[in-house]
Amino acid sequence: MRWSRYYLPTLKSAPQDAQIVSHKLMLRAGLVRMLVAGVYLYLPLGLRVLRRIESIIREEMDASGAHEVLLSALQPVELWQESGRDELIGEVMIRFTDRRGRRLALGPTHEEVITYLAKQDIRSYRDLPVILYQIQTKFRDELRPRFGLIRCCEFIMKDAYSFDVDEEGLGRSYKGMFSAYERIFSRMGLDFVSVQADTGVMGGSESAEFLVPADCGEDELLFCQDCGARSPKGDSEVCPVCSSDKVKVVSAIEVGHIFKLGTKYSEALGLYFLDKDGRSKPVIMGCYGIGVSRLISAIIEQHNDEKGIIWPKEVAPFSLLLLTLNPAEDWAMEVSERIYSDLSSGGLEVLWDDRDERAGVKFNDADLIGVPVQVIVGKKAKEGRVEIKLRRSGEVQEVSVEALPGAIAEVMNGL
Amino acid sequence: MRWSRYYLPTLKSAPQDAQIVSHKLMLRAGLVRMLVAGVYLYLPLGLRVLRRIESIIREEMDASGAHEVLLSALQPVELWQESGRDELIGEVMIRFTDRRGRRLALGPTHEEVITYLAKQDIRSYRDLPVILYQIQTKFRDELRPRFGLIRCCEFIMKDAYSFDVDEEGLGRSYKGMFSAYERIFSRMGLDFVSVQADTGVMGGSESAEFLVPADCGEDELLFCQDCGARSPKGDSEVCPVCSSDKVKVVSAIEVGHIFKLGTKYSEALGLYFLDKDGRSKPVIMGCYGIGVSRLISAIIEQHNDEKGIIWPKEVAPFSLLLLTLNPAEDWAMEVSERIYSDLSSGGLEVLWDDRDERAGVKFNDADLIGVPVQVIVGKKAKEGRVEIKLRRSGEVQEVSVEALPGAIAEVMNGL
Repeated sequence: MRWSRYYLPTLKSAPQDAQIVSHKLMLRAGLVRMLVAGVYLYLPLGLRVLRRIESIIREEMDASGAHEVLLSALQPVELWQESGRDELIGEVMIRFTDRRGRRLALGPTHEEVITYLAKQDIRSYRDLPVILYQIQTKFRDELRPRFGLIRCCEFIMKDAYSFDVDEEGLGRSYKGMFSAYERIFSRMGLDFVSVQADTGVMGGSESAEFLVPADCGEDELLFCQDCGARSPKGDSEVCPVCSSDKVKVVSAIEVGHIFKLGTKYSEALGLYFLDKDGRSKPVIMGCYGIGVSRLISAIIEQHNDEKGIIWPKEVAPFSLLLLTLNPAEDWAMEVSERIYSDLSSGGLEVLWDDRDERAGVKFNDADLIGVPVQVIVGKKAKEGRVEIKLRRSGEVQEVSVEALPGAIAEVMNGL
Repeated sequence: MRWSRYYLPTLKSAPQDAQIVSHKLMLRAGLVRMLVAGVYLYLPLGLRVLRRIESIIREEMDASGAHEVLLSALQPVELWQESGRDELIGEVMIRFTDRRGRRLALGPTHEEVITYLAKQDIRSYRDLPVILYQIQTKFRDELRPRFGLIRCCEFIMKDAYSFDVDEEGLGRSYKGMFSAYERIFSRMGLDFVSVQADTGVMGGSESAEFLVPADCGEDELLFCQDCGARSPKGDSEVCPVCSSDKVKVVSAIEVGHIFKLGTKYSEALGLYFLDKDGRSKPVIMGCYGIGVSRLISAIIEQHNDEKGIIWPKEVAPFSLLLLTLNPAEDWAMEVSERIYSDLSSGGLEVLWDDRDERAGVKFNDADLIGVPVQVIVGKKAKEGRVEIKLRRSGEVQEVSVEALPGAIAEVMNGL
């Protein structure tokens, strides 16, 4: 992609209302723009990061045997009355009456709808187990939307739902999703913790949260200075592992939450199956959420420096940024064109800064948007030599244009 | 994908309220389920078709130089007041007041929001031209939702918006989108017509509709029995090409609509740029829509027979369906396993019907879900021979397992 023809507007400084580092950087790096408080628009670069995150989630969900569906945002309020959650969830769920007089809600979560869906086609133990998931937009009437993509009125989630014949099956599904979550967050380059958690408004018997330690987090973690263990902050302020009282409270962003739901929804909404002996039983369910759009914030919170974002390899919007410092010179454009086409045809996603801008602007923008590897075409390109710069370490090496593809392959492997 | 582990529930007959062929078939073939009138849930097979359609659109949009963004469903009603469309669009736009007292709408279209977005970053002629597009969920308070995915309260659209410095630039953008649309609908296997159309609530100077002739369509087309021309039905009932009065009214589904908007939105919402001489001018805009989810219905309307759906190659949920007629026999599973793994590793997306069902059920389901090529592992597989059946023609050929990959490659090329 040539930057001169792309839609990637960077900002020298962030708007005043952006307080935390990820929020400032995602505005400055041209990832998103705010429409109204709690509602964001994704620019091309932000959408590319979102798609990378979604791909990792899809790959791990598919590998764990789950099947992707797509549910609706509109839901009949009636279903929430049947499950008993209409009052429980309160005003955070947006509701309205349509012209036909139907009471509809904008889904903040989809336990009721997926149970209704499964009820139409699951009849027998032979249809089980099954895990369905979706990546979809959710809505919440947030009184205090804040922190950019962390607390929004409209946001993207991955929600999966498991259906099993018994508790043992639920145990296997829950364990499978737990492992998938560990792989997902690891691949994204996140330092995360999983902790036992309350089941809250979801109901059910067991639940675990996946938390990403960050300065701006809304959840609280205890960090033990003696044994290094991290645990959720409860009433007591001693380490649950070594009982030391040398603990610090480290804040964290919740990026995932999984629940054993049991039969709460299947019984309330009538999702029964016939077992091997022909007896009717409620399906045993689990649900498994990931805050997809929020992950962009979480990743930036953990991967930045004073110059900007430093994307982990698997979620980077482009693998490589090619900077042409003298785009007005024919020799510079010729060398760059050749490098761009060689690296692109080798399968790399290359962003080429071919803009008519000063070198200083290009260097600053490059560090701001955080593509992991930069290739710099400067004056020495006349003699066929260019520079490779690693965004994270700042390390620079000079190589010949001929040796570039090999050197890049090596650098990419080392990321 | 092994059918026995998949979520692909087929129905012997469609619910009574499904009247048109595409609606019946998409329910029977396990593509979608209805939640409430006008609101549908995509099952895994339906989502795969949707993703294929989206991919074709993305490829052609990207190839034409447009950049993908993702806007929000939530929009401040204020923006619609500024553009003057709040009253004009009427009750079809869903509006509500949130807990902070903000008047919000669920976007039925995004001219106002994209203009607001562009205003934040477009300053100069150097930022133009640019075309932004998104594939996103839209909402309409439909009084009479009907025909499955054709008229819904919640549906998926591709909407693109062009920004140019002058009318000439708009002409180029409009022409580029027009050609992209022709490629998109051709690749989907659609027989379509493009016709001049009213600009209606969008405003602007010029507009064209892309219509797919189908029995259930809500738009009307004139078909000339003398010269074969198709044209929109206006007041007169003579062919606009050859003036013959031998015309029939053929109904059609609108799948695309493009508009030259001019400066309607840029002037109303203040999207100005500085030209080469430093003068401030309103940006010239165009908008370009495709009914993404509706295309599933349009394609099925044009591609079916009494047995079920016949997917055109590029939108088929799987390229090939492998049927094992005797899954209880070891030899049948061994041969099938080998074919499945050979064809899958060759890059084909294979659905394998390994279910413990009678052959008749498998044949009917195969024709119903409409995967273009079937490979049938029957009794002769003992001697290493299987059958290839083409869904559209019903043509069958027997080949040896060894010759299968070559034969399949040939068959795929001929589709």
